[in-house]
Amino acid sequence: MKEKILAAISAVYARKPLVHSITNFVVMQVSANALLAAHASPLMAHAAEEMDDLTSIDDALVLNIGTLDPDWLSSMELAGTLMKKKGKPVVLDPVGAGASGLRTRAALRLLDLVRPDILRGNASEIMALDAEIRAADKVLTKGVDSRNESADALSSARNLALRFGCTVSVSGETDFITDGHETLAVEGGSPLMPLVTGMGCSASAITGAYAAAGDPLTAACAAMAVMASAGEKAGKKAAGPGSFLPAFLDELYLLDAEDAARRVRRV
Amino acid sequence: MKEKILAAISAVYARKPLVHSITNFVVMQVSANALLAAHASPLMAHAAEEMDDLTSIDDALVLNIGTLDPDWLSSMELAGTLMKKKGKPVVLDPVGAGASGLRTRAALRLLDLVRPDILRGNASEIMALDAEIRAADKVLTKGVDSRNESADALSSARNLALRFGCTVSVSGETDFITDGHETLAVEGGSPLMPLVTGMGCSASAITGAYAAAGDPLTAACAAMAVMASAGEKAGKKAAGPGSFLPAFLDELYLLDAEDAARRVRRV
Amino acid sequence: MKEKILAAISAVYARKPLVHSITNFVVMQVSANALLAAHASPLMAHAAEEMDDLTSIDDALVLNIGTLDPDWLSSMELAGTLMKKKGKPVVLDPVGAGASGLRTRAALRLLDLVRPDILRGNASEIMALDAEIRAADKVLTKGVDSRNESADALSSARNLALRFGCTVSVSGETDFITDGHETLAVEGGSPLMPLVTGMGCSASAITGAYAAAGDPLTAACAAMAVMASAGEKAGKKAAGPGSFLPAFLDELYLLDAEDAARRVRRV
Repeated sequence: MKEKILAAISAVYARKPLVHSITNFVVMQVSANALLAAHASPLMAHAAEEMDDLTSIDDALVLNIGTLDPDWLSSMELAGTLMKKKGKPVVLDPVGAGASGLRTRAALRLLDLVRPDILRGNASEIMALDAEIRAADKVLTKGVDSRNESADALSSARNLALRFGCTVSVSGETDFITDGHETLAVEGGSPLMPLVTGMGCSASAITGAYAAAGDPLTAACAAMAVMASAGEKAGKKAAGPGSFLPAFLDELYLLDAEDAARRVRRV
Repeated sequence: MKEKILAAISAVYARKPLVHSITNFVVMQVSANALLAAHASPLMAHAAEEMDDLTSIDDALVLNIGTLDPDWLSSMELAGTLMKKKGKPVVLDPVGAGASGLRTRAALRLLDLVRPDILRGNASEIMALDAEIRAADKVLTKGVDSRNESADALSSARNLALRFGCTVSVSGETDFITDGHETLAVEGGSPLMPLVTGMGCSASAITGAYAAAGDPLTAACAAMAVMASAGEKAGKKAAGPGSFLPAFLDELYLLDAEDAARRVRRV
Repeated sequence: MKEKILAAISAVYARKPLVHSITNFVVMQVSANALLAAHASPLMAHAAEEMDDLTSIDDALVLNIGTLDPDWLSSMELAGTLMKKKGKPVVLDPVGAGASGLRTRAALRLLDLVRPDILRGNASEIMALDAEIRAADKVLTKGVDSRNESADALSSARNLALRFGCTVSVSGETDFITDGHETLAVEGGSPLMPLVTGMGCSASAITGAYAAAGDPLTAACAAMAVMASAGEKAGKKAAGPGSFLPAFLDELYLLDAEDAARRVRRV
C-alpha cells in the first residue's frame, strides 16, 4: 500500500487537480487553502446555471451538506449527476447527518441518486446514515449503549460501502477506510484538530484531489494519510488551536510523503 | 461577581454547550473557531426545514444580522421563536443597525418577536436602536453633538434592556453590561481587536455559550471578560492584526480564568 | 508617479474609506481583514432591500463574481448602478470569467451596464473577456498557442479599457495597469501568494479603498503596490502558505509606504 500512496501523492503534485466544492459557508476559506497547500486547485460554485460548464473542466467534485438548504441541495444533485455522467469522481461529506432529518435525508438522497465514489464523514454521521437505512429496512439496530464507537462505525461503514458501491472513509483518532471488502487504517493527527473548524471538511476536499488521481480506496487512504502527517507535525509546533491552523497549512504544503505513506496499514 | 464568573467558566468547560449561530458569511469561520477555542461546540445552519430538529439539540442560539436578507431573517424569526418556546437562551447581535433601514427594522423586529435574553452590539448599534424606538414613540432624542458616546450608549442600553426585558452588552474600550437595573463594566482587550473582522461577532457567539450555562447578566459579563483577557494577552504577543488572530484563539483556549474574572466590576 | 502613490496612501490612511463588497463566500473573511489591515473599513451586504441606504454611506463598491448566482448578480447590478448614479467608484473583479458562460456573461453585463471605474482580474480572466467581445464582434482572435501570456493579457487589457472607458488592472508576477493610453507595471509579491485563497480578491478590495481616495489609474497602481510590498516582505518571513497569511496582514498594516511607492514604473 505504501507504494500506492507515494504514487498517488506524486500524481496529485503533477496534475494539480481542479477540485470543485459545493460546500458549507463556514469552511470555504479553509478548504480552499487546504487544497492549495495540498498542491491542488480549488473552485467553489453553486449556481445551477454554470454546472454543465464547470463539470466539464472539474477534475473532481466534493459535496458537503454543512449549511444545506433546498436550493443548494438541488445544485448538488445536478452537479453530482453531471460529474458521474462525465465519468469523473464525486466525494460526499454528510456533515451533521443524524442532527436533523433534512441532513440525514439529503445525504441518503445524494448517495442513492449520485452514487458518489467516496463517502467521507465522522463516526456519528456514518452510524446515523446506517441506522436510518436499517430503520427503513426494518433491520434491528444495535442498542444505544454500545461502548465501542470505533467498531460500530466500522461496521456501519462496511454496510454503507456495500449498499451504495462506494468507498467509505471514517475520520477519528484512527481513521478507517473501507470498500466493504478491504479495510485500512490511518494513524496520526493531533488532539488540536477537532478544535479547528473545517478540518474534516478539508479532509473531504483533499480526498477529492486524490480521487482525481487514482482509485477511490487508495485516494481515500492517501488523503487521510496526508492529513494525519501534516496534522501531527503541526500539533507539535502549535501553542493552541489558533497557531495550529497556519502550521497545519505549512506542513501540508511541505509534506513529507514518506511519513504520510507509512501511516496506512491494512486491518 | 468574581465567583459567579469563575463558576460560569467552569460550567461552560464542563458542558461544552452546542451553540447554533445564524450569522453572517464574513465571520462564520472565526466564530466557529472562537467557540471551539472557548470550549463550546459550534453549529451553523439556516434552513427553515431543519429548525425544529436543530433547536431541539441546541443549547443556545445566536442571531447575527451582518449579511442579512429576507430569507435568512425569516429563518432567524423561526429559530428564535422555537428556542424561546423550548425555554432556551437566544442572543441577538444587531450588526450594522443604523446603517440601513433593513437592519434597524430587522433588529427591532427580532427584539420584539423573539425577545432574546441578551442583546450584544457596539455603541453605535445600541444607540441607533434606541433612537429608532424614541423616534417611533416621538420621544425627543438627544442632540447629535453629544461628546460622551460611552455614557450615551449606556443610557441607550438601559432603555433597551427595560423595554425588551433583556440584558444588553455593549462592547467598546470598556464593555458595559446592564439589565436596566444593575450595570457592570469589563476592562481589557487590545487596540488590535477592531482591526480583525469578527471579533464582535465572536463575542456574541461566546455570549451564547455562556448563556447556555447561567443567568443572562452573568453570562454576558463572563463572555466579555473571557474576550478581554484573551484579547489583552494576544495583543501583547502580536506584531499586527494578522498574527493577532491565531494568538487570540490560542489565548482563548488556554484561558487564565482568574485573570478573566477579575476584569468585571460593578458600575 | 511615486509622489502620487505616496499621496494616495496618505489619503486612504486619513479617510479610512468604507468599502462595500458584494463578493464571494470563500474570500469574505480575508477581504475584510485585508481592508482593515490596509486602514480601510469593510462592509459586506447583498440584500437588494438595503442597497439604496448602503450606497449612500459607502465610499466605494467592489463587485466580485466568485460564487455568483442570479440573485446576487441582480444585487450587484442594482448596487453598481446606484453607486455610479451617486458619483462613487466601482471596482469589478471578474473571478472565473472564461470558466463558465454564466461568469463571462455576468462580467460583460456588469461592465456594460454599470461601467465600473476599474476592472481588476488575472491574465486569463482579462483575456477571456476580450476574446468573448472579439468573438461577438467577429474579430479574429489570436491563436491559442501564443507563448507570451503577459503580452497577450496587456493587449486584452488595453482593448477592454478603451471599450468600457475604465482602468484595467491585471495581476501576475508583474502586475500591469492601463487606461488604454498609459500603462504602468508593479513588481513584487511572493510565490506563496497564489497558494493562499483570496489574495486576488483582497487586491480588488484594496483597489476599492484606493479608488475612494483618488483617480482610478493611481488607485489601481497604489493598491497593487501595497499588495506587492506587503506580499514580498511576508513571503520572506513565512515557512509556507499557512504562515504567509498572518504575516501578510501584519505587513499590510505596518506598510512601508516608500517601499510600496517605488515599485510602480511606467511601461
